[in-house]
Parts: sequence; structure tokens; C-alpha cells
Amino acid sequence: MKIEIITVGDEILIGQIIDTNSAWMAAELTRQGFETVAITTVGDQEEDMAKAIDTGFSRADVLLMTGGVGPTRDDITKKTLCNYFRTELIFNEKVFRQINRLFAHKNYPMNELTKNQAFVPKGCTVIQNRVGTAPLLWFEQRSHILVSMPGVPFEMKTAVTTEIIPRLKKRFLSVDYLKSSFLVSGITESSLAILLEDFEATLPGNFSLAYLPSYGLIRLRLSARGKENLPEMRFQEKKLREVLCDFLVADSDEPLEALLGEALRKEKLTLSTAESCTGGNIAHRITLVPGASEYYKGTVVSYDNRVKISLLEVSNQAIETYGAVSREVVEQMAQNVSEKMKTDCSIAVSGIAGPDGGTPEKPVGTVWICTRMHRETVTKKYQFGTSREENINRTTNMAILQMIKMLDKYKNKKDAN
Amino acid sequence: MKIEIITVGDEILIGQIIDTNSAWMAAELTRQGFETVAITTVGDQEEDMAKAIDTGFSRADVLLMTGGVGPTRDDITKKTLCNYFRTELIFNEKVFRQINRLFAHKNYPMNELTKNQAFVPKGCTVIQNRVGTAPLLWFEQRSHILVSMPGVPFEMKTAVTTEIIPRLKKRFLSVDYLKSSFLVSGITESSLAILLEDFEATLPGNFSLAYLPSYGLIRLRLSARGKENLPEMRFQEKKLREVLCDFLVADSDEPLEALLGEALRKEKLTLSTAESCTGGNIAHRITLVPGASEYYKGTVVSYDNRVKISLLEVSNQAIETYGAVSREVVEQMAQNVSEKMKTDCSIAVSGIAGPDGGTPEKPVGTVWICTRMHRETVTKKYQFGTSREENINRTTNMAILQMIKMLDKYKNKKDAN
Repeated sequence: MKIEIITVGDEILIGQIIDTNSAWMAAELTRQGFETVAITTVGDQEEDMAKAIDTGFSRADVLLMTGGVGPTRDDITKKTLCNYFRTELIFNEKVFRQINRLFAHKNYPMNELTKNQAFVPKGCTVIQNRVGTAPLLWFEQRSHILVSMPGVPFEMKTAVTTEIIPRLKKRFLSVDYLKSSFLVSGITESSLAILLEDFEATLPGNFSLAYLPSYGLIRLRLSARGKENLPEMRFQEKKLREVLCDFLVADSDEPLEALLGEALRKEKLTLSTAESCTGGNIAHRITLVPGASEYYKGTVVSYDNRVKISLLEVSNQAIETYGAVSREVVEQMAQNVSEKMKTDCSIAVSGIAGPDGGTPEKPVGTVWICTRMHRETVTKKYQFGTSREENINRTTNMAILQMIKMLDKYKNKKDAN
Repeated sequence: MKIEIITVGDEILIGQIIDTNSAWMAAELTRQGFETVAITTVGDQEEDMAKAIDTGFSRADVLLMTGGVGPTRDDITKKTLCNYFRTELIFNEKVFRQINRLFAHKNYPMNELTKNQAFVPKGCTVIQNRVGTAPLLWFEQRSHILVSMPGVPFEMKTAVTTEIIPRLKKRFLSVDYLKSSFLVSGITESSLAILLEDFEATLPGNFSLAYLPSYGLIRLRLSARGKENLPEMRFQEKKLREVLCDFLVADSDEPLEALLGEALRKEKLTLSTAESCTGGNIAHRITLVPGASEYYKGTVVSYDNRVKISLLEVSNQAIETYGAVSREVVEQMAQNVSEKMKTDCSIAVSGIAGPDGGTPEKPVGTVWICTRMHRETVTKKYQFGTSREENINRTTNMAILQMIKMLDKYKNKKDAN
């Protein structure tokens, strides 16, 4: 059974909002063993919606449609579906009572526009919306199903989890989706593909391997459908791990900052950071992890060299001799921030994010990263790209990764003793 | 001329990533006067892609396709397009030289798979990718155009702004998209809808007003197509401004941090920040703006109270008496950071982001924000929600907004004198 998600809304087509509904729905359907074959967004025009339904039915068995079901003038999904399925609107007493209950509970006054929500297409199955006024409409035509539901995220999520997925499960066979993620670094996408050539060539046909590169990292996703493939999955995972060898950072789908947090927590170590070109992004990423205050003490962002001198006590001489973007300066930053914040570990970065500030010797994208732990330091120079956004994100990833690797070595050494 | 965006990638269909590329592209196309009629996502299968292209050509004149153009085996866009347009791959010397340049610059070794990127479909126009290895492929068939480009966000963005939009503009008439944005704060979405009831009821039918709420702010977008509507647009803008009155923060579509940067630059003022619960996100947002180093000096993120004491010299007594999340502590943070970093203005925040750390008196979501300028301070307490991500983002928005308002008052006072 194949599913297509159809989102209705001009606001997506003009780029005013990002369609996070479809992403959530796709993830949930996958988790529940269903396959999404397409996601389509069209505007609030009857003709476009009808065409999308036609196309959808030609490639999927079930269409899950969100949006355009509000009480206002510009919401035309209900009318379009009436015309598409050649039916008419009739008053539904049960829906009306539900709307009344909701409005009474929130102390909202009832009005004509809202009453209209109780008119539903004749012949479709009407499913109560437990948390909103627009009911879910379930249409069947020959072997095809179309479900219309609200686009309000909270209402859509409630509808999908409590009503739609249970009904689809009763009706169709769901097939378990098996997935393993591997975080890889230190290799370009194409070199990785060459490294994995034999692995991919011998991978069973019902397995797939996908590459998701992101700012200096590559996530590999090995996947297959069907519980019966679990032993083969385990076997392939093991094989893949062996081939990836030193390029493998983690077999996990966790963000890098969560992996760092886990490693610090396990070893009961604390961390501070000193940032220049990343402007606080490393601290931001680290503190996105709930409970980060357990191991993370803080950062100094020295966007101005004078702040490097006054707050981080980097020597004026080092800045004058080597420049702010240099091995000497990041090492001083790392040492001083860990001493000032009394942490076991520290990360310091200094670089040129761009678009301005580059020189022939230090072009935009030049970045020094120093990671420090118990007086030991690892300092590396990187050459990233010309885009400010890219440089900030790549520096952040590489800095966190460099710290994770340092912690790994520490742990291995400790375990060996 | 109508455009459809087609995104290729299983990772979107399983909900592993959110399709932010399409949203960005749709926004940019709209801004440039083009109309997007549909956005479609299909997986990395030739049959699905071919079907999506067929459907696309039946409703749009131009298909902008992203994804599936990497060097790895799971990237099959190029092969699919060859089959679709009945052509074959040929070696392109210019593309190969560009790849070589890129690899040399980044110090990557060249390999066979990357060389393959230089094989392009015969008969299509090949456009250099200035920032990556996969070239842009421009196909024409009768009156239809299909452009294939990489899915890597910054490569896609570079391609769209520097190559694709200029070429579309040469070829097609763009119909001016008139748009005004209004940044609103201090009112809920539903209260705003009630406030704007009369305005919306009398808005001409070819105009639309959209609401985009985001972390304590609401962006309103008033729009219409066609230059001839410009006088009416100006009239409606004026009306809307009057109704919005004090809730209006700015008539601009710029991010809040860019508005702050503009205000500081105009008044030649400098800024520093001291963050606790936002963990560096305020600094990160401020430094996303190119040229921020002109006015922004840095931040101290004191995730640990001892860092508040050691680096920010907040008095131990204030923390013990009032707690870290208090008026007294944020005011000291703001004062001390501006003195240490020698800035005219400063922002300090302290709060409980959650999910843990709340108490009955200070539940999760309690945040104090102090903005300071030339010894004057504004200090406010906010009560946000229970989600960590929401609290970090709302605090960041409200802190930047509070600073913008302070600068506004300063400017008005100065202008009045």
C-alpha cells in the first residue's frame, strides 16, 4: 500500500512557511510501517487540488490531505472534494455538538462561519476531530482512499495518531521499516562511495544505502522493509562498520552535540568554549541538548580582538605577531577559557567566516580549532568555503567532532590501562 | 509562466529531513515575481521521477529540480534525465576543470566518481556550479524547461540566485509580486485576527493577508500581483499600519537581528551580550548578519553560576539572595558585560529553559531580560512555555526586540531634541 501526502496552502507556495507537517507525517507513517511515495503541495485553487488528487491516485492508494478546511472564505477543500466526488454538503448533528462543546469549553462565542463546519460531504465517513472544529473526512472510491484533515499541526498530529493510522492498520498490512544510521567524517562523499563500492555491490537488492552529507559530515542510512530482514540487517551493519573503520564517528542518528554530551557525562568531565568566527553557534548547539548544564559551563564569544585580550587574556603580542586567526591565539583561548571556567575540557575556534575579512594568506574560510583536555591540546587548521553560513556550520561541526575524538582517545586509553 | 519545484530524495519521504530547500526557493521565486504552482517530493526511483516530471510539465512551464545529483550510486537524477530526454552522457572539459579547481582549493584528492560528475547529458545547457562539483543542467523541450541542480542548500541557493533567476528573467515576463511585511508583537494571533476583522473584510479581493506567527512574533504579509495595484497597496498599507498601531514593530521582512544591526550601525553604537538560558543563541543570531563585527563585540555565556561570578563578576550575594534567575542578577550581568567589553549597549538574559530546573516560584519558562544603554536599563520578566526549544527561541526574540525598542526610543528622543 502506498501513501501520498497532499498539502493545500498558498502560504507554502510563496515560501512563507516551511511544510513541517508533511515531514512529521512522513516520519510517523514510516515508523508505523507505511510507505510514503510522494509529497505534493498545491495552492488554494479548486483546479489545482483536483489535478493533485488525480495524480495522487495514479501513484498511491491512500491520499492524506491537510489544509484548507478552516471556516474562512479562502478555505475551499470541502467544496473541492464535494465536486470531485460528485456529492453535496449535508448538516451533521454530531459534528455540530462537538463544535459547541469545544466553543463552550474555551468560552468562545458561536458564529455562522463556525456553524458551517458542521456541513459535511454526503457519503463520506465523518470522523470527529477531538481537538478542533473541522472534522476529518474519509472518502473511498473503488480501491482508493482520500482523507482530508486540518493543517493546524496539533490537530493534524492528533488526527493521524489517534484516528488515521489505527484505521489504516486495520485495513492494510504495515511492513516494518528497518533503519540504521552511521555518522561518518574525514572523507568526501565521492571517496566514501569508492570505499563502499564493494559493500554496495553485494548489498541485497531489497536493502538501500543513502548518503546525507551535511557541513563536513556524512550520515549513511542503511534501510530495508520487513521484519524478516532483521538478521540480514545486523549482518550488513557489521560489515559496514568494518569497512568504515576509522571514518565512523558513531552508529547513531543523534546530533553531534548530543554525542558530545553523552561522552562528557559518561566520563564526568566538564566543558567550556571560546568562540570567535562561530559567534556563539557552538555554545548554542551544545545547549540545545536538555541537561547540558550538567557538563557545560559557558562560552566567551570574542568577536572583537579586544575582548580576546580583556576577557580571555590572550596576549596582545600573540595577536600582533600571528594574527587573531592562528594556532597561537586559539591555543591561548582554549587554555585560558578552561582555566577561567575551571573545566576539564575546552574548545576554541578562530577563523574568517566571510564574506569580508579575508587576505591572500588567510582567505575567507580559514579556521583554527583547538580542543583541550587536562592540559593536552589538539590544534588543527581547516580551510572551508566562501559562504558565511557554511563556514559557521562547518566550523561548529568540526570543532564538536574534534572534541568527541579527543574524548574517545581518552576513554580508550583509560580502558586500556 | 508557472513554476513547479520538484525535490528528489527518500530522506524527505521517510521524514528524516524537512524540505527547507523548497520553502527557500518558493520565497525567492515569489520575491522575484514568479509564481510557484506546486511543490512535489518523490523518492530516488527513476519511475517516480519520470512521473513527477510528466505531471509537472502538465501544470507548469518550468520545473526546478533539486537533489539526486551527487557522485554516489543512490543519486540517479542524471541517469533519469538522460532517459527522459532520450540522450546520453558526454564528457565536459569545462566542468572537469571546475571540479579540479574546487578539489585543489580544498586539498581533496581527485577520484573516479568525482570525475564522473563531469559527464553531462548531451544536448542540455550545462551551467557551472560555482561552489560544488555537480553542474546545473538546463533542458528545454518544446516550450518547457527543466533545470536540475544540487540539493545541498548553499549550492542550490547560489545556483538559484546567480544563474537560474537571471536566466528566467531574460526569458519570461515576471509579474510583479507586491508584498508588504509587518512585524507585530505583544498580541496573540487570534486577538490580532479580531483586531483586523474590519480591515480584512474591506480588503479588495485580489489582495491577501497572511499570518505567520513565530516564537512571540507575528509576521503579517499583505500581497497582490501586478504593478497596477501599487497605489491600492500603498493605501492598504497605511490603513493596516494605523490599525496595528503600537503592536507594529517594523514594516520589514528582515530578520529581527538584521533590524537590530541596522539600528546600531545607524547610531554608531556597540553591543555586547551576557547569556544564560539562551546558551549563545542570541550571539549566534546577531552574528548571522554579515558585518556584525562592526557593532557586536561578543558574549559571555554563563551556563554555570560560577562563571557568572568569575567572568561576569556578578555578586555571589545577589545570586544567593535572589537566585540566578532574577532582576538583580540580569541587571548586574548587563552592566558588567558592557563595562568589560566596553560597549554602549548590552543585553543580558537569565531563565529556565527546561525541561528540568523549574520550581513552584520559578517554573520552566521563567525568563528575566535586561537591556542596557548608556547606563539606562529596561528589565522585564517573561513567562514562556514548557518546551526547551520554544523557550530558547522566544527568549532570543524578545531580548533582541527589547533592545530594538530601547534604541527606537533613544533615536526618537534624540530626534526630538
